Amino acid sequence: MTPTDDEARGYANGRARRDVIIRTASEHFAERGFVSATILEIAAACGISRAGLLHHFADKEALLHAVLEARDEEDQERFAPYVEAHGAIGVLRGMVDLADHNRLVPGLIELFVRLSAEAAATDHPAHDYFTQRNERIRRGTARALVALQARGLVRADLDARSAALRLTSLMDGLQLQWLFDSEVDLAREIRGVVGEWLTPAGREAFDAALPVLAA
Amino acid sequence: MTPTDDEARGYANGRARRDVIIRTASEHFAERGFVSATILEIAAACGISRAGLLHHFADKEALLHAVLEARDEEDQERFAPYVEAHGAIGVLRGMVDLADHNRLVPGLIELFVRLSAEAAATDHPAHDYFTQRNERIRRGTARALVALQARGLVRADLDARSAALRLTSLMDGLQLQWLFDSEVDLAREIRGVVGEWLTPAGREAFDAALPVLAA
Repeated sequence: MTPTDDEARGYANGRARRDVIIRTASEHFAERGFVSATILEIAAACGISRAGLLHHFADKEALLHAVLEARDEEDQERFAPYVEAHGAIGVLRGMVDLADHNRLVPGLIELFVRLSAEAAATDHPAHDYFTQRNERIRRGTARALVALQARGLVRADLDARSAALRLTSLMDGLQLQWLFDSEVDLAREIRGVVGEWLTPAGREAFDAALPVLAA
Repeated sequence: MTPTDDEARGYANGRARRDVIIRTASEHFAERGFVSATILEIAAACGISRAGLLHHFADKEALLHAVLEARDEEDQERFAPYVEAHGAIGVLRGMVDLADHNRLVPGLIELFVRLSAEAAATDHPAHDYFTQRNERIRRGTARALVALQARGLVRADLDARSAALRLTSLMDGLQLQWLFDSEVDLAREIRGVVGEWLTPAGREAFDAALPVLAA
């Protein structure tokens, strides 16, 4: 075995360890919130020492950012194919399908509901992250609606900015309701609202945009 | 001064002290969440000792329930006159006006956003409270929509249960968005959605239902 193999194995081990820590931290933040979760408990749940964890992440804040980054990457991996395959109508179709998918990822909705509520406090380390995330989602949705209006797929009288705000708010609110009542059908409600905005041609395009969910 | 006067003054002092504790606890829960807030800090902010606070409330959980009860009473005082004055259309009108009003009560939206997200955890002491509150609001809204449909004020093709779920989710979601972006106009968005459900006669009735906000 050459030193290079050793290095490669060390690197792979380091990555695997990092991934376990991120997954575990994500669970803790989802269940207890960022403020109440402790590095010590997360480390213990990973079967390592506090110092062992701090070798990978400088502090709890660095861990929070790593968790959010990992979740964003997964989100992007699932959402991007919709836009690539279907363009602007894929944005709407992707939102509906992802709402359905997210329900099945343990702790995912809990994490975002919990952290975004905490992060409303301006001194929370994820405050800027959620401010930018909210803006980005609203802007992207509004842009897609305008593009669909230009192609006659969305009603011309719809105020795209306001509709985008309502859709993202509805998504956030439905996720919260769902945590209390698992009968709430996120995808059905979002599809219902989007359906009211689509023209007949838009509804056809929406239905024709087949799911492209990665795994 | 008779003993009865003394007793009365003691009772009034006790009530005033209780109210200060509830208000202070409400601020702490809104800013830090229930889990992170401590009895010691709340007591200190009231200028009393931990034991002094525990004389009024057995523990942090009792204090939480007192905070939620007080908020519910205020809510009810503002909302009930709408229903009394305007019947079913008053339910919709009251939701719009209260959304505007709530923005102006410092910490109120923060409190509900923060606590409801925390309370999604089934072992949270306010879990049942929020489960029942969500159900009650959805049921009341659905009932009002059905009554308005019977009178031709709301579109007959509207699925009242689904619309009620969407409206309450939208309200929760808009409150969250507003905490990150104070430009979000809660009342405008809710009025917009409700407006799409109303028939022309319904719109007239809605506009005629004048605000009856208590101070």
